[in-house]
Amino acid sequence: MTTQTIPPQSGTAFVLRKGQRLTVIDPQGQQVSDLVAFNANDTNEWLSSGRTLDYASKFLLTTGDTLYSNRSSPMLMIEQDDVGRHDFLLAPCSKEMFAKLYGHTEPHRGCFGNLVEALAPFGINPDQIPTAFNVFMNVQVDGTTGALSVEPPLSRAGQGTTFVALMDLVVGLTACSAGLSNNFTFKPIDFQLE
Amino acid sequence: MTTQTIPPQSGTAFVLRKGQRLTVIDPQGQQVSDLVAFNANDTNEWLSSGRTLDYASKFLLTTGDTLYSNRSSPMLMIEQDDVGRHDFLLAPCSKEMFAKLYGHTEPHRGCFGNLVEALAPFGINPDQIPTAFNVFMNVQVDGTTGALSVEPPLSRAGQGTTFVALMDLVVGLTACSAGLSNNFTFKPIDFQLE
Repeated sequence: MTTQTIPPQSGTAFVLRKGQRLTVIDPQGQQVSDLVAFNANDTNEWLSSGRTLDYASKFLLTTGDTLYSNRSSPMLMIEQDDVGRHDFLLAPCSKEMFAKLYGHTEPHRGCFGNLVEALAPFGINPDQIPTAFNVFMNVQVDGTTGALSVEPPLSRAGQGTTFVALMDLVVGLTACSAGLSNNFTFKPIDFQLE
Repeated sequence: MTTQTIPPQSGTAFVLRKGQRLTVIDPQGQQVSDLVAFNANDTNEWLSSGRTLDYASKFLLTTGDTLYSNRSSPMLMIEQDDVGRHDFLLAPCSKEMFAKLYGHTEPHRGCFGNLVEALAPFGINPDQIPTAFNVFMNVQVDGTTGALSVEPPLSRAGQGTTFVALMDLVVGLTACSAGLSNNFTFKPIDFQLE
């Protein structure tokens, strides 16, 4: 099994056939990887946070949990999970986000810009990119006040999360560009296809 | 100012011009209204839960809070809010949801089906419908376990929430069809445009 590397602050996209496994690995620890998915045979069907959280009746997803599409079809199942803490609430970081939340005057294009470029060859346009499943992202939630707080990931070097595809998919995957998400240590992400 | 009524388990859609106000009213209490919005001049731009929660750094939105599009543009601002408890995590109820979560064998088309019909004349297709801002929906969140629990709305008869449009919008709005969301009392929703 080959390990491929996504360099810091970049992204990639690939086809994952039904039954294939994708393992996302944090090679150095405390890094985040935004994952989006589309039906490879009809890219108008997309990974949906809203459907998935509704069917799971929880916002923390881990081993055994299924990620659903906007059409309520099972897309991915988490088969194995070393980390157990991921986010499915927040949109990918983007140049607008870096301007608004970080005050950057020459903002990076972020995971969003990286996904746009990686997904374009599959005919997916920027407005189709949904809220990502943010692998290893640690968003603490205060159920009383509603506060969301982005904390360093709990992932340690070499830990990973394995997804099995439940339909033919186009998957977009990044090594996250947002300092708050990865404790201001921009690192690569590794992945394996099986 | 005219009050319009959305009959139980149905939906509507209309243009809301920049600067116009929309007040969503719960005429009998304990009812939910799913709200989606699109840029009226380019319906590929849509109301985004993921962007909004990121910019707000919270999942509970009320007076003074702004709802953003997938392109990070301000779409709506909550100007006045009698209730203070709404949901922006869960997708609209649908026939697939009623089959999966309620075990219905002849499921209602739900808010999703009602939005599909109401938005079709504006050229918006079903796959473009995002996670709705669920006005008055009371989803309790356990920040530790991640559990999401749909509870009866806190809205009392006659209470409402006023939104001001920050761009020209197509708005879809429903009287919710899901028993858990409205304590199994399917009721109408009223709204006013100003």
